[in-house]
Amino acid sequence: MTDQPSPHSPHGSVRNVIVASAAYCDGRRVADVPIAEAGRWAATEGHFVWIGLLEPDEALLMEVKNQFGLHELAVEDALHAHQRPKLDVYGDSLFMVLRTARLGEEPLDGGRLVLGETHVFAGPGYVVTVRHGASTSYSPVRARCESTPRLLRHGEDFVVYAVMDYVVDCYGPVLDEMAAVIDGMEDTLLVRQPTMAEVERVHQLRRDLERLRRAASPLLEVCSRLERFELPIIDAEMRPYYRDVQDHVIRVNEQIGSLREFLSFTFETSMVLAAARQNDVTRRLAAWAAILAVPTAIAGLYGMNFEHMPELHWRYGYPAVLVLIAVVCGTLYRRFRKIGWL
Amino acid sequence: MTDQPSPHSPHGSVRNVIVASAAYCDGRRVADVPIAEAGRWAATEGHFVWIGLLEPDEALLMEVKNQFGLHELAVEDALHAHQRPKLDVYGDSLFMVLRTARLGEEPLDGGRLVLGETHVFAGPGYVVTVRHGASTSYSPVRARCESTPRLLRHGEDFVVYAVMDYVVDCYGPVLDEMAAVIDGMEDTLLVRQPTMAEVERVHQLRRDLERLRRAASPLLEVCSRLERFELPIIDAEMRPYYRDVQDHVIRVNEQIGSLREFLSFTFETSMVLAAARQNDVTRRLAAWAAILAVPTAIAGLYGMNFEHMPELHWRYGYPAVLVLIAVVCGTLYRRFRKIGWL
Amino acid sequence: MTDQPSPHSPHGSVRNVIVASAAYCDGRRVADVPIAEAGRWAATEGHFVWIGLLEPDEALLMEVKNQFGLHELAVEDALHAHQRPKLDVYGDSLFMVLRTARLGEEPLDGGRLVLGETHVFAGPGYVVTVRHGASTSYSPVRARCESTPRLLRHGEDFVVYAVMDYVVDCYGPVLDEMAAVIDGMEDTLLVRQPTMAEVERVHQLRRDLERLRRAASPLLEVCSRLERFELPIIDAEMRPYYRDVQDHVIRVNEQIGSLREFLSFTFETSMVLAAARQNDVTRRLAAWAAILAVPTAIAGLYGMNFEHMPELHWRYGYPAVLVLIAVVCGTLYRRFRKIGWL
Amino acid sequence: MTDQPSPHSPHGSVRNVIVASAAYCDGRRVADVPIAEAGRWAATEGHFVWIGLLEPDEALLMEVKNQFGLHELAVEDALHAHQRPKLDVYGDSLFMVLRTARLGEEPLDGGRLVLGETHVFAGPGYVVTVRHGASTSYSPVRARCESTPRLLRHGEDFVVYAVMDYVVDCYGPVLDEMAAVIDGMEDTLLVRQPTMAEVERVHQLRRDLERLRRAASPLLEVCSRLERFELPIIDAEMRPYYRDVQDHVIRVNEQIGSLREFLSFTFETSMVLAAARQNDVTRRLAAWAAILAVPTAIAGLYGMNFEHMPELHWRYGYPAVLVLIAVVCGTLYRRFRKIGWL
Amino acid sequence: MTDQPSPHSPHGSVRNVIVASAAYCDGRRVADVPIAEAGRWAATEGHFVWIGLLEPDEALLMEVKNQFGLHELAVEDALHAHQRPKLDVYGDSLFMVLRTARLGEEPLDGGRLVLGETHVFAGPGYVVTVRHGASTSYSPVRARCESTPRLLRHGEDFVVYAVMDYVVDCYGPVLDEMAAVIDGMEDTLLVRQPTMAEVERVHQLRRDLERLRRAASPLLEVCSRLERFELPIIDAEMRPYYRDVQDHVIRVNEQIGSLREFLSFTFETSMVLAAARQNDVTRRLAAWAAILAVPTAIAGLYGMNFEHMPELHWRYGYPAVLVLIAVVCGTLYRRFRKIGWL
Repeated sequence: MTDQPSPHSPHGSVRNVIVASAAYCDGRRVADVPIAEAGRWAATEGHFVWIGLLEPDEALLMEVKNQFGLHELAVEDALHAHQRPKLDVYGDSLFMVLRTARLGEEPLDGGRLVLGETHVFAGPGYVVTVRHGASTSYSPVRARCESTPRLLRHGEDFVVYAVMDYVVDCYGPVLDEMAAVIDGMEDTLLVRQPTMAEVERVHQLRRDLERLRRAASPLLEVCSRLERFELPIIDAEMRPYYRDVQDHVIRVNEQIGSLREFLSFTFETSMVLAAARQNDVTRRLAAWAAILAVPTAIAGLYGMNFEHMPELHWRYGYPAVLVLIAVVCGTLYRRFRKIGWL
Repeated sequence: MTDQPSPHSPHGSVRNVIVASAAYCDGRRVADVPIAEAGRWAATEGHFVWIGLLEPDEALLMEVKNQFGLHELAVEDALHAHQRPKLDVYGDSLFMVLRTARLGEEPLDGGRLVLGETHVFAGPGYVVTVRHGASTSYSPVRARCESTPRLLRHGEDFVVYAVMDYVVDCYGPVLDEMAAVIDGMEDTLLVRQPTMAEVERVHQLRRDLERLRRAASPLLEVCSRLERFELPIIDAEMRPYYRDVQDHVIRVNEQIGSLREFLSFTFETSMVLAAARQNDVTRRLAAWAAILAVPTAIAGLYGMNFEHMPELHWRYGYPAVLVLIAVVCGTLYRRFRKIGWL
Repeated sequence: MTDQPSPHSPHGSVRNVIVASAAYCDGRRVADVPIAEAGRWAATEGHFVWIGLLEPDEALLMEVKNQFGLHELAVEDALHAHQRPKLDVYGDSLFMVLRTARLGEEPLDGGRLVLGETHVFAGPGYVVTVRHGASTSYSPVRARCESTPRLLRHGEDFVVYAVMDYVVDCYGPVLDEMAAVIDGMEDTLLVRQPTMAEVERVHQLRRDLERLRRAASPLLEVCSRLERFELPIIDAEMRPYYRDVQDHVIRVNEQIGSLREFLSFTFETSMVLAAARQNDVTRRLAAWAAILAVPTAIAGLYGMNFEHMPELHWRYGYPAVLVLIAVVCGTLYRRFRKIGWL
Repeated sequence: MTDQPSPHSPHGSVRNVIVASAAYCDGRRVADVPIAEAGRWAATEGHFVWIGLLEPDEALLMEVKNQFGLHELAVEDALHAHQRPKLDVYGDSLFMVLRTARLGEEPLDGGRLVLGETHVFAGPGYVVTVRHGASTSYSPVRARCESTPRLLRHGEDFVVYAVMDYVVDCYGPVLDEMAAVIDGMEDTLLVRQPTMAEVERVHQLRRDLERLRRAASPLLEVCSRLERFELPIIDAEMRPYYRDVQDHVIRVNEQIGSLREFLSFTFETSMVLAAARQNDVTRRLAAWAAILAVPTAIAGLYGMNFEHMPELHWRYGYPAVLVLIAVVCGTLYRRFRKIGWL
Repeated sequence: MTDQPSPHSPHGSVRNVIVASAAYCDGRRVADVPIAEAGRWAATEGHFVWIGLLEPDEALLMEVKNQFGLHELAVEDALHAHQRPKLDVYGDSLFMVLRTARLGEEPLDGGRLVLGETHVFAGPGYVVTVRHGASTSYSPVRARCESTPRLLRHGEDFVVYAVMDYVVDCYGPVLDEMAAVIDGMEDTLLVRQPTMAEVERVHQLRRDLERLRRAASPLLEVCSRLERFELPIIDAEMRPYYRDVQDHVIRVNEQIGSLREFLSFTFETSMVLAAARQNDVTRRLAAWAAILAVPTAIAGLYGMNFEHMPELHWRYGYPAVLVLIAVVCGTLYRRFRKIGWL
């Protein structure tokens, strides 16, 4: 799912892999720092370093690990994508896994849910974000943080909040788009039988919703811990902000739940309507079969070759039979209409 | 969903936006106060201010914020509708989100659930209600409070109770109406196959119930916290009142749950009945096909052009065949009746 | 749903409304007391008053309130029926809502669940029961209590227990009757397709079960609190009795759950059987259609008017064709039997 | 469900009712004791009495109650069967209800689940088991206990464990048998449409599973309390044994859950397959109807009596028509085969 | 399910049964030790013994029990397979049951889930693993541990971690394979009606998923206890490793849950599509029946033998009728196409 340029030349790759690495003090960017000096900046009183990496290789991660003294297991997790969202505490530092979501735009995955992954290391004096896969860039987050020094002054925990907020915000448009598809499907359903392609679309949607649920629901516990428990680097005054993220996460999860319900209703309604349609068709079939059997049966009788069939010799036998057929068929037709079969 | 007049002229808008703003003392309204002086009144011993706003713009909310020292995040929430019901505590003040419900009456949304939103700020000396969207006016609440000074004397927490009580009360008629539709649908179902429009109505109802559930169920936790925990401005003697609201909320949620169950039963029963009806039609179709095949087959035989068919020359061959056909068909008919296919 | 005589004349109504009002001491009835003196008796050391009311008007309830100092909110609840079962503590007194159940016997509601409502006020020296709607009389409870002075000596908490026990006991026969209907339905189902009336009966049963569940399940929490927590007027030695009621309530709730499951199974089984029956009918239809098409097709061929059809001139052409038809039809019939279509 | 001989003669009944009554000391049976002396033996230091009763009458139970000072409510419960499994603590004694299970072997209830009931009173110096209904005898438990004095030395709590272990063990074969029936059903399902009798069997199984669940699941809490809480007569060193029973109970409950799931899957699969079969039959029906309609239609045309129909006078008109019919039917047949309808 | 060679000759069996038995010190293997000396090595300061057994007989287990003083109940459990995953604490030692999973490769169980079982005894100075059934060998675990002395230095708790990690890792490929089958099934479903064999495959998958769930879900509690509680032999610094296993277990359980959901969606979609297909077929059947009934009916009319049928004598009566038939059939055909029935 990742279509990043592979790091062929060492110089080129480094430029791609390290998206940004800067030191901040009192809410303002004070310097762009190389990884090798990041640890020193992080240890400087009142400063913190914010590094953004994009699918780093092991060597780079090891360097980062050494600069900030990250825990072995956290670094190992960060090397492999496909973690579930979580918050691990290692001594005085945090390791967080977040999953980003967007809808595919390329012809191949058009409308399909594309999940990315972001790992966040945060400790005293540093925040490191590691992006994997289809996750969008965090440059806007950095830009927005740098434009509000008043808030960025809070330090590392505000950056962590800003990243989480950004990730959770990206679920909104995805859910809106999904809701629109479901609404459209419902409208279709009540007018006509859905096509195979439409049923497939809805089926895919259900799977995508389930995948999104797995990406979003573990955040409930993550936020709850950030808001309620004493955690390293998280100041008490930042808690309302994390509660805000949590509110958002709860809302996202409730929306997912509702969409699941709606899809489930849609399938049930679809079955009820299909049964009704089948019933209609069968009745109509039965009614026409009955009506059309009349001329065949009557004509069959007068097609018999008996010598003694007086009607055959009547002057108006033929028109009489035609009239008889018309009357019987007409009567049947009216009766079927009346009972709603036609 | 909001059809409020947009605030074009500043004067006109202010009149619309500030529905009421009054100071109370000892359960009685003592003065109508401009926003700019609300903070001073709120700080006066034994007084509190109750302000009602209708979709205020940012400037007005900022003024209110400054008067009472509201928290930034709460004000931000109040600017955007579409919050989920919740109760946030900021220092010594409360921020509450409530969702109101009514059934649409206009041709476009006839019978559809219309959800509105109300935000309540409450702290020492003030209560501010902010209405969004289809929410009905709180004038009746104010009138009722002012008519019972004995209770209003409790102060801010009584006003908060009165608003909550009013909001929760409005769910009742909505649920009754929904229950009536479901009952009607069930009666229909057992008599005849439902029409597309009826199925659509029920499908909509399921979605509306799910939306109502999302509006009402978070109130359980809100009420529970108001009743059980030590919260700012909530006096212990007001707790039985909040427990009363909670009882009501529980009842509303149970009713929603039951209606969901009933709708689910209705769909299942509908499937069972559709299968039974399909079976009936198919059997009847089969029976008539068999009966009508008899004259066709017999007549076909005597329509053959063989030279040597003695029956053709019999004097009473023709009537004999007619009788034969009548007897076979009659016998079949009686047999099908007996086994319940006709 | 209530068919009580409406209290037209004040005297008549009082007689109907106050079912009984007596003071007890040491497990024995010592006096019938008017409401106006009830408070005095309740305050007498070692005595308690037990009053039974039937749909009292507001004036009477207010008098009771004044005698025992009941809480405003509890009295308000008692004026309106349709509360959910609950236990509220107000200072040193309890307010309890119970829902009674029985099956309707009148032609109109034959077999339908009829829910009644009882409110119980209990505090030091008094127990007041207030009946609403279809609830049966508590005279048998009073009679049984008075016949076991050894137990009634416990006082107010024993009376509360006796009333609860009586209410919970009345669920048993209702559930048994419902179980019998479900069993009968299952037997029917496996023999033949159920009629509309039978499906309707089952559908009603599901709704009634849901209503009964809502009446019975809140009692779990009520009993649990009575057994486990320190509550006013409830002595520790009465706890095993409340645990007994709780056991009973748990059993009732489990039975309700099982019956719901059984009904759900019944619907699923019904769908499976309907599909099987439909399949059978369609196969049979197909088989007979095939068999009957044979004579029609063959006879049709020999009904053609070609000049040169040698068979038509054969001496035994006609019987040969009849034999051919019989052989083909017979073969088809045997084959269809063999594969189980006929 | 009980088919025990009813106790007509007092002497005969006593013999049947008291299955065994013995005193134990240091893990060995020291004496058979009459009920009337049981209390004395129970009070002897280092001794305990183990009594087994089979559906005792009230008089006998009262005697036992007096000997050991059992609680009134526990004795009342023991008189009536149909309790749910539970563990009640009365002072320093325990009252336990267990439900036994086996599959019926008689023609009437062949393969049906038969539930029995056992009540256990245990206190310092005594254990009394009371069997109701189809419960199997506990003689094997007594025999096994007496054969391992090393364990029986633990005293009353070991006997209670042994009885529980025996009851829980009896669920295993029942579940295995049920699993075998479900497996068989699944195999059948994939080969052919199930018969009515088979559907009935599965439906019964679902009900029996639900009944078994109600018998087994309350044991989870019973075991959990025996293992974790300080209870009268239960020594700390017996706790691993109760944990062992609990493991077993958890396993039984998980198996029940899995079987429920499997049955549910089976019903769903059954519906999918029924729909597929119905589809097959309808297609085949449609295909043959189309093929057989060809000769009828063509022959009908040449059976018309127009004066001027040149084909009728052709030398090879008749065989040409036969060939035409054969070709059209053959083409249709091949085409239907190709698209899988035949 | 076990296909191990049965231990006929005592010498041969011992070789097979004791897979490995070695003593470790400071992260390095220091000696291969016979069982009879294992206890002595375990008691040596700084050393621990790691023994791997394969389906040992009772005698061998008894020897191991004596060497390390294992608890009777744990040993009894280890003799019988078919335990559920659990963690029992006996004094200062742990007993753990794990279930391994792989997909069968033999023709008989191709693609079916094969569950094995491993029991782990761990106490001060020893770890004993006992394999049952289809469980794969733990030689790779031992090799990997011995290759990282830095970690193995942790001692017994690291070995326990390594075994758990290995077991949980083996669930991954199983789930991936299952997911692939489900994906394939979904693709099939949207193209054509699934075959019986495919439906059977999916049905089996559902059962296997349920079995895997029962194997994996109890590990959640096991890991949680290892990570959070003070347990014998588990050092605090090993806790992050157990948390890592727990993360993995949570992920596995979520995947199982998602696959269950996907299968459930697949069944529902399958029903919707089957209904749609059935509808299509019935409509097509009805349309063709109507079209083919036209020539039969018209030809029947002109096959009647009335003396006075003017059309029969027209010069172009015959072609006129043919044209009439063609026009009517063509019109019907176009109309059916337009409404989507053909």
